[in-house]
Amino acid sequence: MKIQSVRGTRDFYPAEMAGRNWLFDRWRRASRRAGFVEVDGPVLEPLDLYTEKSGEEIVEQLYWLQDKGGRRLALRPEFTPTLARMIADRQAALPVPVRWFNISRCFRYERAQKGRLREFFQWNVDLVGVEDEVADAECIALAVDGMKAVGLGPKDVVVRINDRRLLAALMGHLGVADDRVPQVFAALDKRDKVPPEALAEMLAGAGLSDTQREGIDRILAWQALGDIDEQERATPEVAEAVESLQRLFGHLEAFGIADWCRFDIGIVRGLAYYTGPVWEVHDRRGEFRALFGGGRYDRLLADVGGKAMPACGFGCGDAVLGLLLEARGLLPAAPPAAEFYVASAGAAGIRHVLEVVRHLRGRGRAALFNPKGGSLKRQMKKASDAGARYCVIVGDAFTEARRVTLREMDSGEQRDLALEDLGG
Amino acid sequence: MKIQSVRGTRDFYPAEMAGRNWLFDRWRRASRRAGFVEVDGPVLEPLDLYTEKSGEEIVEQLYWLQDKGGRRLALRPEFTPTLARMIADRQAALPVPVRWFNISRCFRYERAQKGRLREFFQWNVDLVGVEDEVADAECIALAVDGMKAVGLGPKDVVVRINDRRLLAALMGHLGVADDRVPQVFAALDKRDKVPPEALAEMLAGAGLSDTQREGIDRILAWQALGDIDEQERATPEVAEAVESLQRLFGHLEAFGIADWCRFDIGIVRGLAYYTGPVWEVHDRRGEFRALFGGGRYDRLLADVGGKAMPACGFGCGDAVLGLLLEARGLLPAAPPAAEFYVASAGAAGIRHVLEVVRHLRGRGRAALFNPKGGSLKRQMKKASDAGARYCVIVGDAFTEARRVTLREMDSGEQRDLALEDLGG
Repeated sequence: MKIQSVRGTRDFYPAEMAGRNWLFDRWRRASRRAGFVEVDGPVLEPLDLYTEKSGEEIVEQLYWLQDKGGRRLALRPEFTPTLARMIADRQAALPVPVRWFNISRCFRYERAQKGRLREFFQWNVDLVGVEDEVADAECIALAVDGMKAVGLGPKDVVVRINDRRLLAALMGHLGVADDRVPQVFAALDKRDKVPPEALAEMLAGAGLSDTQREGIDRILAWQALGDIDEQERATPEVAEAVESLQRLFGHLEAFGIADWCRFDIGIVRGLAYYTGPVWEVHDRRGEFRALFGGGRYDRLLADVGGKAMPACGFGCGDAVLGLLLEARGLLPAAPPAAEFYVASAGAAGIRHVLEVVRHLRGRGRAALFNPKGGSLKRQMKKASDAGARYCVIVGDAFTEARRVTLREMDSGEQRDLALEDLGG
Repeated sequence: MKIQSVRGTRDFYPAEMAGRNWLFDRWRRASRRAGFVEVDGPVLEPLDLYTEKSGEEIVEQLYWLQDKGGRRLALRPEFTPTLARMIADRQAALPVPVRWFNISRCFRYERAQKGRLREFFQWNVDLVGVEDEVADAECIALAVDGMKAVGLGPKDVVVRINDRRLLAALMGHLGVADDRVPQVFAALDKRDKVPPEALAEMLAGAGLSDTQREGIDRILAWQALGDIDEQERATPEVAEAVESLQRLFGHLEAFGIADWCRFDIGIVRGLAYYTGPVWEVHDRRGEFRALFGGGRYDRLLADVGGKAMPACGFGCGDAVLGLLLEARGLLPAAPPAAEFYVASAGAAGIRHVLEVVRHLRGRGRAALFNPKGGSLKRQMKKASDAGARYCVIVGDAFTEARRVTLREMDSGEQRDLALEDLGG
């Protein structure tokens, strides 16, 4: 019986795996350049870790199971709650600030579609213990460095930055009741994904008056911090949030990445735990979903049972980014399987081939051979298919004098040499 | 509420993660030296992929869940069935032999104990399309190369090699009925883990007579291929299996690893799919469970719906190996978080620090700073805690002349230089 893979999951054949390794390698290097260290947690986490903060609704969007003891275990949908749990567990012993990154497989039980998979990888970066906006700027700078590392530039992508405190203060100024704010935020978060009428409907559903909705329309038209009306600026909470954003943009300037970033009052982020600056990265042409999502979550540590600690960070999935890199032709070709291919000729047999293979590998060189042997022509064809740079021909000169022929595959040039001189 | 992690899972804090990356890196390099290419599949697989071959009993040892459509999905307990599924899917297009490796997170719902976890990683290597024993030897050679790469030698570990066809032929010679053989194999597989009386009991339970059990005792006493009695050798199936093992040992000799390997008639392997040579790696002192398990599985591809194809490979978990490496003091220390730590002094502020950080990272150097600032003394302490090799002091000379002070942390030696000359 032929068995099909699960919908929304991927098989990584050599070419896809090479692309994944290439991407992860760039994420790792960028993280390390910024002094972040890698951590990881389990895939299986207690379901409570997610329901505690997000409520039981999240159960519908997760893969979870009940174990033999009746405990509900979830497949992690993201890394941040695990990170918060790990920090809460060792809070007294960890040197602050904590700078951690992680590249983890995550799972979401959603409708599988372009750029939205049920199994995906996420680059997760968190900086814990710093309240100052410089920490948010550091995270954004690392996201930008990660994009540079895969060949993207400020003409390809934009970091859209907002602050939930600003949005909350503006809602207060419009007279929106506090208990309606989460519903309004949820509606705004869907703004790019639904037609304007649907947004208006959602806002009306949140109990907003016509005047309040007009106020939101006016706010959403702001293109820069400077567009904020004097009237709103007079509200102390708005003024404070604007000053904080100005400090953040100042730090981004110092990092030399101002041209990658802009203020966007429409950025809200869906996740419940954000408390301050929030940001997303989008492709400039608007062809794809958000590439990165990040922000400040100063209450999450206390929510998982730790001592309260300021924190910020971001996540970047591999699926949407992969689509963008493919569309821009930025994914590299897979590297060849080996530098050397060892082939036998004449009276030499598999034992002689193995001896040469062993010599090359012992010198740290990648060496392939055909366990099925075959004619020299056939072996050379295999060497060429494998993308080998050199073919080492082991023939009578080897059995007689331990000498081999080294053929450079591209040029076809050949020379004889002693085994000891092979492989540097 | 404090949330606990799931039993049998691990949190990888920076030190543990550094060890994991170190190990995976060595596995990857060894695999690539032997011309194997990396692949991966999903964690979530159809439960059928495992029950098809192993029967419904395996459901008890797996984590699995039912999705909203009533489909049973399992968390993969090993990679080989996924590999077989992936090959069966593209069988016509894949160049043969297929040499794939994979480092994957796997899940088993077993009693968590030392070296046996519910979430673990496995290095998986498979060579598909070659019937010759040279393919088995190639896999064993790669396992040995992987052990060398982490500092183990033939005095630490031994590869114990057998062939299921030999064992089956010997059972035939003893007159054990074919349908009893799986039960006998299962009993023999537990030999090292139970007292001799328990083994005798299991064999009696399989319906073996006293004479047959005595025969098994005699067989299990063999230490080398040469110990096999003339009487058994006269059986053609036994003779054939012995010749095949002799060819295998000949190839291992050519690979230069004969001193790592020995024949062991007691090696059976638990998994149902093995059809030929089977082997395990054990620590010589016998302190731990098996480190590697491998063998030939010529029927698995047909079992998952593909065309029959000879195949062999191995798996090596990270948990038992980690215990052995720890016991032998072979795990390396975690690398420092960054080479450079940038500190401010005098009139210089965070913006000047960020400028220097940006300069260093732009040159590919890892650079840290304290987003909370603080006194120079405090920042130097942080630099030392982070294991930084250099502290870059950004003070009045920077605001005046873009010059910084470079302090080598170990020696305390300091020198002034222009920003352009910093970081090579």
